[in-house]
Amino acid sequence: MKLKLLRADLSSGSMRDEFVDEDEVELFIGGRGLGVKILIEELKPGTDPLGPENKLIFMAGPATGTAFPTSGRFHVITKSPQTGGIGDASCGGTFGPELRFAGYEGIIIEGKAAEPVYLWIRKGEAEIRSAGRYWGKGTWGTDDGIRKELGDSNAKIASIGPAGENLVMCAAIINDKHRAAGGAAVGAVMGSKHLKAIAVRGSKRPPVADEKKLKEAVQKVLKMFRENRITGQFLPTYGTAVAVNTINKYGLLPTKNFQTSVFPNSEKISGETIAKTILVKGKACWGCPIACGRIIRITQAPYQVEGEGPEYEAIWALGPQCYIDDLTAIAKANNLCNELGMDPVSYGNTVGCAMELSERGKISKEKLGGLELKFGNPQAIVELTWRTAYRLGFGNDIALGAKRLAEKYGAPELAMHVKGLELPAYDPRGAQELGLAYATSNRGGCHIRAYMMGPEIFYVPPQLDRFAIKAQWVKTFQDLFAICDSAVFCKFATFAIWVPEIVEILNAITGWNLSPDELLKAGDRIYTLERLFINREGFGRKDDTLPKRLLKEPMPEGPSKGHVVKLEAMLGEYYALRGWKDGEPTHEKLKELGLCKYENL
Amino acid sequence: MKLKLLRADLSSGSMRDEFVDEDEVELFIGGRGLGVKILIEELKPGTDPLGPENKLIFMAGPATGTAFPTSGRFHVITKSPQTGGIGDASCGGTFGPELRFAGYEGIIIEGKAAEPVYLWIRKGEAEIRSAGRYWGKGTWGTDDGIRKELGDSNAKIASIGPAGENLVMCAAIINDKHRAAGGAAVGAVMGSKHLKAIAVRGSKRPPVADEKKLKEAVQKVLKMFRENRITGQFLPTYGTAVAVNTINKYGLLPTKNFQTSVFPNSEKISGETIAKTILVKGKACWGCPIACGRIIRITQAPYQVEGEGPEYEAIWALGPQCYIDDLTAIAKANNLCNELGMDPVSYGNTVGCAMELSERGKISKEKLGGLELKFGNPQAIVELTWRTAYRLGFGNDIALGAKRLAEKYGAPELAMHVKGLELPAYDPRGAQELGLAYATSNRGGCHIRAYMMGPEIFYVPPQLDRFAIKAQWVKTFQDLFAICDSAVFCKFATFAIWVPEIVEILNAITGWNLSPDELLKAGDRIYTLERLFINREGFGRKDDTLPKRLLKEPMPEGPSKGHVVKLEAMLGEYYALRGWKDGEPTHEKLKELGLCKYENL
Repeated sequence: MKLKLLRADLSSGSMRDEFVDEDEVELFIGGRGLGVKILIEELKPGTDPLGPENKLIFMAGPATGTAFPTSGRFHVITKSPQTGGIGDASCGGTFGPELRFAGYEGIIIEGKAAEPVYLWIRKGEAEIRSAGRYWGKGTWGTDDGIRKELGDSNAKIASIGPAGENLVMCAAIINDKHRAAGGAAVGAVMGSKHLKAIAVRGSKRPPVADEKKLKEAVQKVLKMFRENRITGQFLPTYGTAVAVNTINKYGLLPTKNFQTSVFPNSEKISGETIAKTILVKGKACWGCPIACGRIIRITQAPYQVEGEGPEYEAIWALGPQCYIDDLTAIAKANNLCNELGMDPVSYGNTVGCAMELSERGKISKEKLGGLELKFGNPQAIVELTWRTAYRLGFGNDIALGAKRLAEKYGAPELAMHVKGLELPAYDPRGAQELGLAYATSNRGGCHIRAYMMGPEIFYVPPQLDRFAIKAQWVKTFQDLFAICDSAVFCKFATFAIWVPEIVEILNAITGWNLSPDELLKAGDRIYTLERLFINREGFGRKDDTLPKRLLKEPMPEGPSKGHVVKLEAMLGEYYALRGWKDGEPTHEKLKELGLCKYENL
Repeated sequence: MKLKLLRADLSSGSMRDEFVDEDEVELFIGGRGLGVKILIEELKPGTDPLGPENKLIFMAGPATGTAFPTSGRFHVITKSPQTGGIGDASCGGTFGPELRFAGYEGIIIEGKAAEPVYLWIRKGEAEIRSAGRYWGKGTWGTDDGIRKELGDSNAKIASIGPAGENLVMCAAIINDKHRAAGGAAVGAVMGSKHLKAIAVRGSKRPPVADEKKLKEAVQKVLKMFRENRITGQFLPTYGTAVAVNTINKYGLLPTKNFQTSVFPNSEKISGETIAKTILVKGKACWGCPIACGRIIRITQAPYQVEGEGPEYEAIWALGPQCYIDDLTAIAKANNLCNELGMDPVSYGNTVGCAMELSERGKISKEKLGGLELKFGNPQAIVELTWRTAYRLGFGNDIALGAKRLAEKYGAPELAMHVKGLELPAYDPRGAQELGLAYATSNRGGCHIRAYMMGPEIFYVPPQLDRFAIKAQWVKTFQDLFAICDSAVFCKFATFAIWVPEIVEILNAITGWNLSPDELLKAGDRIYTLERLFINREGFGRKDDTLPKRLLKEPMPEGPSKGHVVKLEAMLGEYYALRGWKDGEPTHEKLKELGLCKYENL
């Protein structure tokens, strides 16, 4: 399977098609894997992430847009202006499949347009068009406007809002109005290039090597999706917010910027409550049998909205992280994030950090224009959305992200981040391997490099002792999730199916003959290549760490009471499993993975 | 008295000083009078108000910054992009006096800067500086930022917010964070020129011809201010919001976009309630003994704010016009208007118009993202502030102003405007001469060309029958208020003092020897010259009119029940008094006023 990419230089306006050879695809799979390969080969060390030399890569993978359930996704890869390391994000919706239908597996954006532009890709042809009339608009208006301009109500759009234009650190790229490629400021890179949107439309079905084998495999996994409690029952019924009560029950729901992780009112913001109050109906990304999305409506002031979400992570960041239990405020803020083009996780984490800074007297009242920047204030989480996107008033500080915000106000220890990326919705003091996953994530503090809540809480696959000190499953998940992001399908699939099913489907699609071990080795290769990328930018063992709070302050209450993350005790084992030394791959490991050419690049 | 003006061409970056001769000043007084004279002489008919050929004129007058009480003001004059006619606005605060202290009586802004700039005027020297770092900021942040950059905490700043930058039709120019030159989109003209702000600083006291006579006259009028109920008691105690209950009592408080003018809950939004609830203390513009400004604080979500206001007009527009009786929402929206650089009167009038359009089924729900655009919804008036300033979602429609909004949605009769400018806070069906004042205002529908509430309701000067059909007092007020805006002092002074006192003070300041009649004749001259300006742009008798609702729909209830404005019955008398024919000055009248040179300009 060859992949066809579009390379678009926005500085010169020139575009050309490129092809990735079969053997390269088999080594790096596609999506995130190929993205980081392109990035490490083409970017000089020290490249300014917001300069024209940075590249912004949109990638589908071999699974995208096929019958593989949950394959309605795409991946964005770039150098992050927030972390200075690898900046990437996965996104659902409809854009990923449509990109393949339009004839491309990926797009490499280079340079910077003199004036705002958007890309229009249709039937293997690409065009750079003026986006002057959309600059300043939200993602919703951009979506509607471009479809109207193109006279094609079925065009699929990925766009940035004002947050991306204004280079805000929580800026995301939004597809289908409510699906976000969020984290690591990928939206700000798009804004820095004056690229407002990419519109795609096509009808070319992706190639499949063995349709019959694929069909059989898909039938089998669809049954597994249906029969699995999480993918067949919990997620379809309650969305991802089904996790709120469970995570809180274990004392893992970070509250008040991780000062504790027991939230008194989790029931008020749970998936069950959403279903009883604001839910209109569920919604699926392209080709997904789970349909964890939520269409919602709130008709009461002051937080009226018709939209989608909030997802579990957003509920946490806009809720317990800020000690807010007002579901309408959370839903409103979440929808404003989508419209303005922001990642609610990074945004909410940063607001919670600001609230703690404020309560500790680090932020003067004059900065706030009367806004009470205190835990529990629903107005703050709503009003700061647009203030952040437009950098108005104190929003200009939230736009820095948690790390730089806390540094600015003289209390860097209050930023809950790893490598500059804000932590998500689980306190690792009650889930040790998750702590290791946060610390060693190449991307920075996140749960989508290795979702240890699966084995540590949700029992899928085998149950782990959440307080035990070990590292094997972190590596396995990191490698497997690199495959999800590179073949490009949803990580939620791994609740129901595992490496054997995934490799069977991928082989059917691609005609490869990979074994499960070989597939995981490709994941290892991708993960290690990312590590080389960030090593080159100065990251090492010193950065594979956690906020002091999680390492030194025992959890004050609840079922995880008394615990800290015993990171050092896990890190050695982890590096040994990875074949790394002090956070850097050894020559032997690179040789094993065929990555020696990147060793001193 | 010669006046010194700065002429700044932002296209070329060149600046020069100019002087207005004594005799011209005596004819046109200063401020608004000289502004319109410059405009009609220098602008070609049909000039694009948002093009570089338009001029934006900031003017002080001979009274500004002297001991004349209430002289802490300036006037802005331009061609309005909202009306296509004369666009001007008066503003309090500190900028006007400081402009004179800095050595200038006025500034003529020409052209358009390639990049955002601000002007810095100090001790008779002017400098154009980059405003790149302030573009996108609110007026509050711009104010603080420029003062910090200049290292001068006493610099006075007039600036635009995002609304002006985004060419919004209710964009204002803000001084001292809470004082607005509002109406007619003067802020949008400033934005079109990429002029973010003007900063001024100086210590040169304005020249006074006879200090002793001025001192005596000021002592006398200060006593009159103190002894007058309105300027000595009501305004200092309750601010302009003291009018809410009174105006409502007469059935004059426009409610639901003028569908009625009896508002059920005026007490909840009155000056008395402000004093009891959110008021911190009163605040004065420079040199003002009245101090009608309000410093307020609201600590409860969802409408926390520390700021100022709201004034009577803003309370109406953000309140009864939209059937909103939530004082905290009104105060929040008002402060957001100030920060974002918008006129709350035009903004609130337009939102009320949109609410009626929405309730009548003219606006589809898809446009609104869940926002309930219904009378009485406090969320709408708050959320649409920033949406309008940034043109996000339906805010892009509010940014059109009421007239164009109602036209867009196919119901132009629902826009409550005259000549494109939104009407203010009094229903003229219960105050006939006010209706004539609205209709004949050169600027468009406003109360500050002739405040007929004085004689028709507040009994100062002599009481008029508010239902009587007559025109004399409209002309007198129009001429007198032209003097207020040209000598440049506050119209509220006319509650306490009248033409004899004003002429005495002005003569003392200038060394002129004008009689009261001669002073009013100068006002007539200014008013007539403005009329020539708008005639040239196509305005005539057809535009001296009112919305059909006020002419044809009898007031449905209350103390003004059954009345419409009998405009035609007054218009003839008015034109006769003015020496105009069908809305245009006659040759004889122009000869009398010495304006023949402008006749066919």
